[in-house]
Amino acid sequence: MIMNGPVSGMRADPVITSRTNKKVAELVRLRLPRHRARAGAFLIEGYRELSRAQSRVDLLDLYYCRALWSGRHEAALLARARAGGTRLVELAEEPFRRISHRDRPDGLIGVGRIFPAPLNGLPAQHGSLLLVVQGIEKPGNLGAMLRTACAAGVDGVIICDPATDPYGPGVVRASLGHLFTVPLAITDSGSALRWLQQRGITIFAGIPDAPDASWDADLTGAAAIAIGSEQRGLSSRWAEVAHPVRIPMSAGPAGGPDSLNAAVAAGVLLFEAARQRSGIAAPGSG
Amino acid sequence: MIMNGPVSGMRADPVITSRTNKKVAELVRLRLPRHRARAGAFLIEGYRELSRAQSRVDLLDLYYCRALWSGRHEAALLARARAGGTRLVELAEEPFRRISHRDRPDGLIGVGRIFPAPLNGLPAQHGSLLLVVQGIEKPGNLGAMLRTACAAGVDGVIICDPATDPYGPGVVRASLGHLFTVPLAITDSGSALRWLQQRGITIFAGIPDAPDASWDADLTGAAAIAIGSEQRGLSSRWAEVAHPVRIPMSAGPAGGPDSLNAAVAAGVLLFEAARQRSGIAAPGSG
Repeated sequence: MIMNGPVSGMRADPVITSRTNKKVAELVRLRLPRHRARAGAFLIEGYRELSRAQSRVDLLDLYYCRALWSGRHEAALLARARAGGTRLVELAEEPFRRISHRDRPDGLIGVGRIFPAPLNGLPAQHGSLLLVVQGIEKPGNLGAMLRTACAAGVDGVIICDPATDPYGPGVVRASLGHLFTVPLAITDSGSALRWLQQRGITIFAGIPDAPDASWDADLTGAAAIAIGSEQRGLSSRWAEVAHPVRIPMSAGPAGGPDSLNAAVAAGVLLFEAARQRSGIAAPGSG
Repeated sequence: MIMNGPVSGMRADPVITSRTNKKVAELVRLRLPRHRARAGAFLIEGYRELSRAQSRVDLLDLYYCRALWSGRHEAALLARARAGGTRLVELAEEPFRRISHRDRPDGLIGVGRIFPAPLNGLPAQHGSLLLVVQGIEKPGNLGAMLRTACAAGVDGVIICDPATDPYGPGVVRASLGHLFTVPLAITDSGSALRWLQQRGITIFAGIPDAPDASWDADLTGAAAIAIGSEQRGLSSRWAEVAHPVRIPMSAGPAGGPDSLNAAVAAGVLLFEAARQRSGIAAPGSG
């Protein structure tokens, strides 16, 4: 049941106290990809994530539970959301925890409109550094790659053929909200390849037996670092056109090369590109 | 109920067909840290993980479910285990899936004896490269760090003050079994600091506002790369004695520096050390 609650800021927000409330059940369903697709909306949980979302995402609703707030800026975030036309609803702790994806919720969950992420929204100027991720299966990896790409200062991320929904709560969470700050395209491999090739952007792919070590490849020009799926790596159409680079790995106990988690591989290659682009001569190399 | 089943290899193994079997319930309980501590044993699931475990771990039992096998080498692994004194038990699919930690189990789960991991088992020769992880909370991160450390060719990993049990199924899984291949110590921060300092090993810590970029620091000598917990970073006793290095990150949307997932940070710093140690002059730096 929804009733008028205590005044928050300038006027009273509706309050939900029951965990079996119909709206609560609807929000829980947004954890599932098919319900997100049907509603055209997705969940954004957490202060940091919502703050980062405010620049790009049309925030439809914002659910809050004061008992779970841990910082000092929640009221200001609510005020900004309200000013932007977001509907605010107060939740009691029990229904809030039912919706939350977290062990330690911080009392803020928004519903954002799924936003378009076309290739032509990406920058492609001279010297761009892009991350391409293809067929990623695990939300935690996809989110960590978005976070890593932002920290490495990429100009954009292209998500191709995702095997996990980029708007899922695990991706939002692991990205710490960088799903909303990095220039982003979500597309298929064919379109991404055409777009990159038309713009003369060199595609680099981490391949275990490539002759060039990553630090021997010149990553200072317009470059797209391509990382494939956890199980299968990059699909053949990427491997065929990419310039192969090898992250030099120690031999495994069985003699073959070891491998890296997809997000770690992205980090190693992107920060190698950042190092080369910093123009600083490195000790140990001279 | 346990009964004699079809012949596997040279003699019949006992077979469990019921998911409510007492032994199955006991194995399921091994997912919990307190039951592992009480039993002095832990679960090792998967062909790759078990293969890597065979060099270091005393494998007490091996449970298998032929219907779930996907490769061609399972029988050989069983034969090696049997020859080493491991007790083999065949499981029907239903009880096997109850024990499994995976979405796509491959029909092999072992029970290993928890092994000692003392500091004095680590190498500390001239030029050693070590990874220190302190207070890590997430099994997936701890496992990914072990996998990354192996790929980067470290001489050892020191796990300090773990906030997640290193013998948990999530760590075994994310490490792909490298929990069993890398020289490993599990200890507290005080002991680890003394051990490192007594051996003159320089401790490097990733600190966001450190003056030296990671590629400006000399990581070619005896070095321990220290990574702190996901929530709180390194504890102050580490930060006080460590040589701070900065992974040069792009400014976040709010102006402050972004941050990296703990496993990604470990990968970036370890492979920077590997680059410097490779003695290869890098393009982009000259």
